[in-house]
Amino acid sequence: MTHIITPVILSGGSGTRLWPMSTPDAPKQFLPLTGAHSMFRLTLDRVADRARYAAPMIVCGPGHVCHVEADLAAAGITDATIIVEPAARNTAPAIALAALVAGGDDTQLLVMPSDHVMTDVTAFLRAIDAASVAVEQGALATFGIQPSGPETGYGYIAAGASFPGAAGVRGVERFVEKPALETAMAMLSAGSYMWNAGIFLMRADRYLAELAAHAPAIAAACNKAMAAPRRDGLRIHPDSAAFLTSPAVSIDYAVMERAANVVVAPVDPGWSDVGSWSALYELGAKDADGNVLSGNAIAVEASGNLVRAGAGKRVAMLGVSDLIVIAHGDDILIIPRERAQDVKTIVERL
Amino acid sequence: MTHIITPVILSGGSGTRLWPMSTPDAPKQFLPLTGAHSMFRLTLDRVADRARYAAPMIVCGPGHVCHVEADLAAAGITDATIIVEPAARNTAPAIALAALVAGGDDTQLLVMPSDHVMTDVTAFLRAIDAASVAVEQGALATFGIQPSGPETGYGYIAAGASFPGAAGVRGVERFVEKPALETAMAMLSAGSYMWNAGIFLMRADRYLAELAAHAPAIAAACNKAMAAPRRDGLRIHPDSAAFLTSPAVSIDYAVMERAANVVVAPVDPGWSDVGSWSALYELGAKDADGNVLSGNAIAVEASGNLVRAGAGKRVAMLGVSDLIVIAHGDDILIIPRERAQDVKTIVERL
Repeated sequence: MTHIITPVILSGGSGTRLWPMSTPDAPKQFLPLTGAHSMFRLTLDRVADRARYAAPMIVCGPGHVCHVEADLAAAGITDATIIVEPAARNTAPAIALAALVAGGDDTQLLVMPSDHVMTDVTAFLRAIDAASVAVEQGALATFGIQPSGPETGYGYIAAGASFPGAAGVRGVERFVEKPALETAMAMLSAGSYMWNAGIFLMRADRYLAELAAHAPAIAAACNKAMAAPRRDGLRIHPDSAAFLTSPAVSIDYAVMERAANVVVAPVDPGWSDVGSWSALYELGAKDADGNVLSGNAIAVEASGNLVRAGAGKRVAMLGVSDLIVIAHGDDILIIPRERAQDVKTIVERL
Repeated sequence: MTHIITPVILSGGSGTRLWPMSTPDAPKQFLPLTGAHSMFRLTLDRVADRARYAAPMIVCGPGHVCHVEADLAAAGITDATIIVEPAARNTAPAIALAALVAGGDDTQLLVMPSDHVMTDVTAFLRAIDAASVAVEQGALATFGIQPSGPETGYGYIAAGASFPGAAGVRGVERFVEKPALETAMAMLSAGSYMWNAGIFLMRADRYLAELAAHAPAIAAACNKAMAAPRRDGLRIHPDSAAFLTSPAVSIDYAVMERAANVVVAPVDPGWSDVGSWSALYELGAKDADGNVLSGNAIAVEASGNLVRAGAGKRVAMLGVSDLIVIAHGDDILIIPRERAQDVKTIVERL
């Protein structure tokens, strides 16, 4: 509990599953989708206690620096570090950049996506404290979310033996990539499987060592890119040509599935990756008919709908059920809730 | 066939069933809902042949004179008469004003709503010619639309004996107000019932005589209102105080159901009263999936939908069926096609 943990917020995503609100220029993590603040801002807020967490590092693309800086300013954070990726190369290289900026020493890095929500932050912080004990001893920690159903859109973690001295933390037997439904149901029954939330805690030196061992091309590219980075205010710019030589690989595939001494800290923080409009429906406050309405929207004899009427828009529905209706800017999306994942089909068509 | 017929276009409606496009300020007859032209303009165009039809009279409210004049100008009509009703008093008084402007003589008046569409105008004009023979002899003629289903939203006409010398024209046995479904189905089976399209042909003198006999208060109010009307360009303004004393009654109730010598000219002109968004779906050109799309709209794995994306809007739908989606101005309406009549419920709520 004595180590100060450095938050590393990965903000590389530009998900299209929340189109028309989420777009490449304004991806979902920067939108106030679940309340007054963006999910990026909520991620900052979770680790705002400077007695426990150091100034955050953010890894993002050049097109999103403005969003990051606006949210940092709104949160009153003036000492963050913004690592500007010349191009997206997936999570393993992004985290390597942060580990190098941290000095490559035994600093503990808490790697978090920027586009998740949690309703029980205390539970999350408690799990971090537990994991930190194992991480201090060299483990690479993942966080395992208690599954609420046989979700096929997430990777799973098979938990093994307890880690001595770290409350609830267990070894990882194996990682399971996004499963088929039958596999997901079997894992749910087995009980020792958890969702991989894409959140990690590890020492910078340990990560870089494992990366060098299992993904040397990534390690080499990132080392070279950070040999003499350009600095500009809060921003750090790795060398573009060097970084672009890095393979694009996830931390799961490049490191976690190969490294020794990987542990999982179970946690049930009321987590959602807000992966679709359907997830936002689940998160939203329901009216008496089970509608989640925001903006100027009226629903008559209508139930189970998610409606977002953007600024200046008015949505009026009658007699429809379980639809997603998003009016944003010039665009209007209409899709059944159960087909929310197919928004990407529309985006491809447009 | 020698008589020149004077078209009288009633433009008093301000239907809400096509909200959000149709509003009190811009009711449906002035909107280009079925093509490039408004239904009011299409009504003018049907009787544009000056060898057969005199300059039209239009009866409308003060708030719609601008729409009427714009469409008249676009149609190149400079000799119309616009009778400006101080307030709506239903159709019997409106037609009385026109009959008085026509001089109260044996001029034949072709009374038409301004918000219907017809796909076979030739059939309509042929039926007018047939009816005109009976009208010349003093009959009041209605036009009976061949029913295509047991519609409960229309009045019905029971046809009787043939009118000698007027091809297809028959006496009217009785008028049936909007029926219950069972009644409608029975009439459909009986075969001698037609829909009352609200289109009439009659001599001005005969109408005024029947009105004086069966609705003397209306006749008196209209006579007084037209004793010294104010003229202003194409516009005629009846005396407001006098007109406002008129009862508000339909021509059907005040005259047609009571008068002697009422006939019906059967006609099948591909008629629609465009009474709901569902009617516009029926009229529209369908894509391979049975969608009627206008404006910037895409439908993926979606069928049977009516979508209108207004200027600057883009509607994208996936996996939905038989919906009406209207994006117009700031408003977006979503309702099942089968509930199109319930748009009025939404309008009442707003």
